Amino acid sequence: MQTAVSVTPRWDVSAGICGYFLPDMLKRNPTTIRMNNANSRLFFMGAFYHIRNHILQGRASAEVRLYLLKYEKHSASRKTKKNKETAMKKSFGPKTLVYPAPVWVVGTYDAGGRPNIMTIAWGGICCSQPPCVAVSLRKATYSFGNIVGRKAFTINVPSEEQVKVTDYAGMVSGKNLDKFAATGLTPVKAEFVDAPYVKEFPMVLECRLLQTIEIGLHTQFIGEVIDVKADETVLNEKGLPDIEKIRPIIFSPEIRAYHTTGKSIGLAFSIGKELA
Amino acid sequence: MQTAVSVTPRWDVSAGICGYFLPDMLKRNPTTIRMNNANSRLFFMGAFYHIRNHILQGRASAEVRLYLLKYEKHSASRKTKKNKETAMKKSFGPKTLVYPAPVWVVGTYDAGGRPNIMTIAWGGICCSQPPCVAVSLRKATYSFGNIVGRKAFTINVPSEEQVKVTDYAGMVSGKNLDKFAATGLTPVKAEFVDAPYVKEFPMVLECRLLQTIEIGLHTQFIGEVIDVKADETVLNEKGLPDIEKIRPIIFSPEIRAYHTTGKSIGLAFSIGKELA
Repeated sequence: MQTAVSVTPRWDVSAGICGYFLPDMLKRNPTTIRMNNANSRLFFMGAFYHIRNHILQGRASAEVRLYLLKYEKHSASRKTKKNKETAMKKSFGPKTLVYPAPVWVVGTYDAGGRPNIMTIAWGGICCSQPPCVAVSLRKATYSFGNIVGRKAFTINVPSEEQVKVTDYAGMVSGKNLDKFAATGLTPVKAEFVDAPYVKEFPMVLECRLLQTIEIGLHTQFIGEVIDVKADETVLNEKGLPDIEKIRPIIFSPEIRAYHTTGKSIGLAFSIGKELA
Repeated sequence: MQTAVSVTPRWDVSAGICGYFLPDMLKRNPTTIRMNNANSRLFFMGAFYHIRNHILQGRASAEVRLYLLKYEKHSASRKTKKNKETAMKKSFGPKTLVYPAPVWVVGTYDAGGRPNIMTIAWGGICCSQPPCVAVSLRKATYSFGNIVGRKAFTINVPSEEQVKVTDYAGMVSGKNLDKFAATGLTPVKAEFVDAPYVKEFPMVLECRLLQTIEIGLHTQFIGEVIDVKADETVLNEKGLPDIEKIRPIIFSPEIRAYHTTGKSIGLAFSIGKELA
C-alpha cells in the first residue's frame, strides 16, 4: 500500500479519487497493488475509469463528483498545452551550453617554479570518496604543462568583488607574463601539494593529480582534494565556509556572463520532503 | 627588457625604483636581465638593495627617496599581515567542498523503458570540442545502470521555483518508484538520444555516453552534447538561453544549501580588460 500511495501525486485529482476508493478496491483485488512502476500509470487509469463509472451511477458523494469534473477539465487542457509546448522548445545543436558553470582559478608552478594562475569554468566535483574535483584545460595553455609536470594544482574560488582580476587571469597566457604580478595577487605555496594558491581568494583547494583524461580539445585533470582552506572571515556559525560570505561567481557559457550567487532557497535533502 | 618590465608589478614600489635605475644598471651588468622567471624575485631584491645604497649615499632624487620610505613601510606591514593572514585560513581536510556546484537532473530510461530522473551536483562541462558535460553517479543508484545500459542521458536544468521537485528527485531511488509520476513531471523522449528529458524544465541537454571513468565511490560519465534545447520563454533578445530567465539553482556541498542565481556583474573576456 505504501508503494501505491507514493506514486499518486502524479495523478493529482484522479489520485485523490483513487485514494478515496483504494481501501475498497484493495479488498476486491489485492494483487493490483503489487504492480511494478511501469504499469502504475495503467493501474491508476484503470482505477480512474472504474471510479468514474461508480460516480456516473450516482454512487459517489458530491465532493468526489466535483473532483471528477476538475480532473477532466485539467486533463483536457493539459493535452492541448502539451502539443503547443513541445513545439516551444528551441534546439541549439551541440554546444557547451548549460547553466550554471563555476568560476575557478587554477594555481600551478611551472618547471622553473614560477607560479601561474588560469581562470576556468569547465570543471566540477566528480567523486566523494576520494574527494575529487575535475578541471579541463586545453593543451595550448601554459597551466596544462604545469599540471602535467608538477602533478598538482590548486582550485581557488574568487569572490564576486574579485571578478575583474579573475576575468583577466582567463584572458591572458602565463607563458610570457607573471599573472600574479599583473593582478597584484599573492601566491602562497600550498601546504600539501606542489602548487601555489591565491592568498586573497576566500576558499582554496589543494589537489593532487589523480587521473588525466583525454577528451578532445580539452584534457580533463581529475584532482584528489588533499585539503580545503577558507578564510576565517567567511565561515558560518558552525565553522563551515558560508557561500553567502564567499559569494562565488556563476558563469554562463555562450552568453559569457558572470552573475553573483543569489538568495537561499532551502536546504538539500530537506525541502523535497514536502513532496514525499 | 620586456621580460623585466612584465614582472615588475609584483614588486610594486620597489619595481618603480628598479625601473628608474634599470637603464643604468643594464649598462653595467646586461646579463642580469636575462634571468629566468624563477630568480626574478632575487634580481629585484638585489636591485632594490643596490639602489637603496645609492639613495642612502644621497645619490637619488627626493621622489625616489619617498618611494623608498613608502616601500619599506609597505613591506613591513605586509610581513606582519602575512603571518596573521596565513594563520587566518582554516583547514578543512580532504572534502568535496567547493562552491558553486550545479543542480542538474539526469534523465534516463531503464531496461524496461521506464523513464527515471535523478538530481546531481557532481558534474560540469569538460570539453569544448566535442562539446561534453560530465556527471558522476554512484554505482548504487538506479540511474547508473540506466546510463550503462542505454549509453545516453539527458541533463535537465531546473529553475529556482522547481527546487522542491528537484530536491525530491535526489532523495529517493527510482528503483521502486516512478519519480516522474511522484513529482508530476512529464518525460519526453529525447530527439537524438535514448533518454527522456523533463518537459517542465526550461533547459535540457541530450547526451550520448562518450567515456566512463572509474574514480572511486563515483563513476564519471562523460556525455557528448548532441543537442541543447530551451523553452522559447527563457530566451534573450539574441535568441540565446537567458540565465536570468532560466534562474538555475546553485548548490553548496557540505552546508547542503540551495541558492538562486544573483545579479549580473559583467561579461567574461571583457571586464578583465580594465586590468590589461
